[in-house]
Amino acid sequence: MSYSIGVDFGTNSCRALVLRLKDGCELGTSVFSYPSGEAGILTCPENVHVARQNPQDYLDGLVHTITEAMAQAHQADADFDKTKVIGIGIDTTGSTVIPVDGNCQPLAFDERFKDRLSAKVWLWKDHTAHKEATEITELARNLRPEYLDYCGGVYSSEWFWSKLLHLKRLDEEVFDAAASFVEHCDWLPAVITGQQDPGSIKRGVCSAGHKAMYHKKWGGLPDKEFLGRLDPKMADLRDRLFEEVHTADEAAGTLCAEWAEKLGLTERCVVSVGAFDAHMGAVGAGVREGVLTKVVGTSTCDIMVAPQDPGVIPGVCGVVDGSVLPGNFGIEAGQSAVGDLFLWLVNQLVPEKYGSDLGEKFVKLGEEIASLKPGKSGLLALDWNNGNRTILVDQQLTGLVLGQTLHTTAGELYRAYIEATAFGALKIIDRIEECGVKIDKVVCTGGLSLKNPVMMQIYADVIGRPIEVSVCEQTCAMGAAMFGGIAAGTETCGYASLEAMQDVMCQVHDKVYQPDAYSQVIYQKLYTLYSTLHDVFGTPDWQGNLGHVMKELLSIKTSS
Amino acid sequence: MSYSIGVDFGTNSCRALVLRLKDGCELGTSVFSYPSGEAGILTCPENVHVARQNPQDYLDGLVHTITEAMAQAHQADADFDKTKVIGIGIDTTGSTVIPVDGNCQPLAFDERFKDRLSAKVWLWKDHTAHKEATEITELARNLRPEYLDYCGGVYSSEWFWSKLLHLKRLDEEVFDAAASFVEHCDWLPAVITGQQDPGSIKRGVCSAGHKAMYHKKWGGLPDKEFLGRLDPKMADLRDRLFEEVHTADEAAGTLCAEWAEKLGLTERCVVSVGAFDAHMGAVGAGVREGVLTKVVGTSTCDIMVAPQDPGVIPGVCGVVDGSVLPGNFGIEAGQSAVGDLFLWLVNQLVPEKYGSDLGEKFVKLGEEIASLKPGKSGLLALDWNNGNRTILVDQQLTGLVLGQTLHTTAGELYRAYIEATAFGALKIIDRIEECGVKIDKVVCTGGLSLKNPVMMQIYADVIGRPIEVSVCEQTCAMGAAMFGGIAAGTETCGYASLEAMQDVMCQVHDKVYQPDAYSQVIYQKLYTLYSTLHDVFGTPDWQGNLGHVMKELLSIKTSS
Repeated sequence: MSYSIGVDFGTNSCRALVLRLKDGCELGTSVFSYPSGEAGILTCPENVHVARQNPQDYLDGLVHTITEAMAQAHQADADFDKTKVIGIGIDTTGSTVIPVDGNCQPLAFDERFKDRLSAKVWLWKDHTAHKEATEITELARNLRPEYLDYCGGVYSSEWFWSKLLHLKRLDEEVFDAAASFVEHCDWLPAVITGQQDPGSIKRGVCSAGHKAMYHKKWGGLPDKEFLGRLDPKMADLRDRLFEEVHTADEAAGTLCAEWAEKLGLTERCVVSVGAFDAHMGAVGAGVREGVLTKVVGTSTCDIMVAPQDPGVIPGVCGVVDGSVLPGNFGIEAGQSAVGDLFLWLVNQLVPEKYGSDLGEKFVKLGEEIASLKPGKSGLLALDWNNGNRTILVDQQLTGLVLGQTLHTTAGELYRAYIEATAFGALKIIDRIEECGVKIDKVVCTGGLSLKNPVMMQIYADVIGRPIEVSVCEQTCAMGAAMFGGIAAGTETCGYASLEAMQDVMCQVHDKVYQPDAYSQVIYQKLYTLYSTLHDVFGTPDWQGNLGHVMKELLSIKTSS
Repeated sequence: MSYSIGVDFGTNSCRALVLRLKDGCELGTSVFSYPSGEAGILTCPENVHVARQNPQDYLDGLVHTITEAMAQAHQADADFDKTKVIGIGIDTTGSTVIPVDGNCQPLAFDERFKDRLSAKVWLWKDHTAHKEATEITELARNLRPEYLDYCGGVYSSEWFWSKLLHLKRLDEEVFDAAASFVEHCDWLPAVITGQQDPGSIKRGVCSAGHKAMYHKKWGGLPDKEFLGRLDPKMADLRDRLFEEVHTADEAAGTLCAEWAEKLGLTERCVVSVGAFDAHMGAVGAGVREGVLTKVVGTSTCDIMVAPQDPGVIPGVCGVVDGSVLPGNFGIEAGQSAVGDLFLWLVNQLVPEKYGSDLGEKFVKLGEEIASLKPGKSGLLALDWNNGNRTILVDQQLTGLVLGQTLHTTAGELYRAYIEATAFGALKIIDRIEECGVKIDKVVCTGGLSLKNPVMMQIYADVIGRPIEVSVCEQTCAMGAAMFGGIAAGTETCGYASLEAMQDVMCQVHDKVYQPDAYSQVIYQKLYTLYSTLHDVFGTPDWQGNLGHVMKELLSIKTSS
């Protein structure tokens, strides 16, 4: 009888989950909200793009949540004992980059830099490096076009090299003081396994992948000529980063004495190599060949795997060998706004006749759209209010709605936006299938998948595939716990493979959303129109005619 | 010292205005709401397109409003005496068609038909004849393309021949019983001047114009071959209609004894030839060469005049010699939804943070948009929620908004819709100027022109011309009264011409909205984008590329 623990570090909080490996039972969970800054984020009044974090929050959260989740596990299972915890897995946001000194200590802990935002953790959503991102994209296009192949053709301000280059220009003293830079997901395993040398940290392939432009095809990280063209110090830095990368089923090490004591665990406890949240979440939700997992929240993260290298998938960032299920190529995509889009609509454009607060309005809207048939509103929307991540990779795109009459209701608009996000999801699937990766079904996880059954049915009808919803509400922590278990060894954990473990752990709700044949026919027509608008407004080279669009929407409305 | 009376018959009510001819003073006004049906409209639960009226409402309204307005005039002016009322002018909606018997009595008054909707007045907004309208358009395209030249290329279900053909097919008994069919604006003058024979009714050129396809170029009404192809009985009917038409400065006759008594006026009182409301309203608002008058309400009606025949103006319905100012070509255009568009927005999509009712919401929205600068919302809309009358002549078009982000507010959307209607107004001006009719300034009348100063400033900035607002709140009744006066003779009324009368009567508010140079520059950029979307979605043959649209909106937003 053995157990493992997964810890998921999100944007504003972290959560731990204690997993009974025998049957996949979740024995305890605990959440810790980061105490620093605003909801855990260090901001700067002068620059809205700044988003940093205090690494101490991570350490405190780790102790707090593991301690509390284990206390629950004791209550839930008399057999539970902390000596039986064989592994710990950790996932985090990313690129979330920590400047460290020669002892793997964050520069944020250094007295010299304690008041400098530049020495803190650079959170994924820090967008201060947008100019550097453009510069890196342009340099790569000219000098190393292959570097952009696996990140959708555009390098992002949210990623590793943009942030480092921006730091170099912003605060060279901190840049120079950094012995190395470590992703949050690599740093925590290093700390609790007692790594003292940044050079010996086991770096995860998941975070190295497209976000640090790591690919074995060109020998790992970008070469020194490329980095040197950005800045000579960037080229020098390459030697202080890493050559090797590891998958998350590997052990980063075992708990060091200090952390074994802090966490109340044994020094035998294995810590697996870290990875990003959505990737471990996908494993926790049951991703495998033919299965798309979607974390449906404020935005979506879509994860698939392919046993063979799918090669370059245009507009998809990214494709990384081993980033999700070891032995498979992980494929990551996403939509920039889903829940956020609905929240915007209800906050800004839904009147009081739908209710007196957000909750009531969502309920009433849900009732209205449940009674609407596909095509009946005559509306068509693009889901780009927050730009388009996949497959257009363009944050500068904006929203569009057409087909309004003097009778259009807020409910119809809400349904049109849900449909738009479903069409956007299908666009991602289509692109990936075009490149030879087949998707047979979709497993959704995240708040909206549980709270919004009408939306899930629309997704099934639009996507034309069954949609399952994960039972586990903490699929990221679940996936991390699974990696923690497998890293301890197949004999120790009792499973021959991660896939065998998934068969037990990854349960879905009985309710499976099956595509409705009638709705599918209507949505195929609407998707054709959506695709036209998508290409018209989202690509530079489209040429053609749109005089039929409003007429076809009316014809679908009348005939459906 | 002499006086005249104008009576304006609207969709739900009529109103009379007593005018002192010496100085243009409005001595009394009175409104009468039609008592029949729903707000004066006879509807049919089985068919939402039915809109009929009871002609008795018109007669009752005439007596009621004239009597009441004259009582007010007595109070306001001790010199007023009903024997000094030298003329009456009447304007109505149209095409609003009345089937009459051989004595000019409406078939609606016939005991045999008293329960039949088909024998009532066919109100302008009755859309039951949409199939017949399509049929007439197609026949004309094949057989007599010139018939469509002056009605924008598409014959409407709201017009004379569509309604007659539909009646013929719907209820042949009523069609056969009709000795003739008379427009509401022609019928009332005929009744009160005692005409007993439909053949001797003086028909107005305004209503005959494009709506009955009347043009001297082809000998008046459509020929019998054309009408016979629609239905043999339509060809026969032509002989029971009319050959001659008259302008509204002509006398239809003088009050008959019966109606002089009913109205308390003398039998010397002249009744002018009738015309449609917007046309007389334009005269009341001061239309003349170079001046566009806009009645800005739920929709707009735009009226201009040209001393020379402007020929065919594509998409403009219609161009009629003498329909507005006798001696000039009247040019009529319009937008299908303006106030209705804002009302829809506020009813459906403006939340309670803007206020608890419609009035409060409009006030708060007005405050928000007053503080916004052109281009700052990043939004662009098409004003087609109710189709596009001019210049696309397509009721099947629908709305569009683009540029939304997760920060877009209802106030920004409201401003974008106001701007869209302004762009639509400029499109009409551009088309008319392309055909050689110059517009130097705009005079607005109607509720919104008085209530919405921010909107008027946006119109001036977009249109790039000064906007004046008419002082008179009942410009249609004012125009009718002016025609009543002039029809009594230039000597009797004391003015050498209608234009001389306009110089006295047509006062505008001191506040003139002047285009702001800075806003004009921004709006020129936005208008270019609006025009692109207009052509893209509104015309069948546009070819091109739209990848720049969202980017340019962002660039205008950032730089403005």
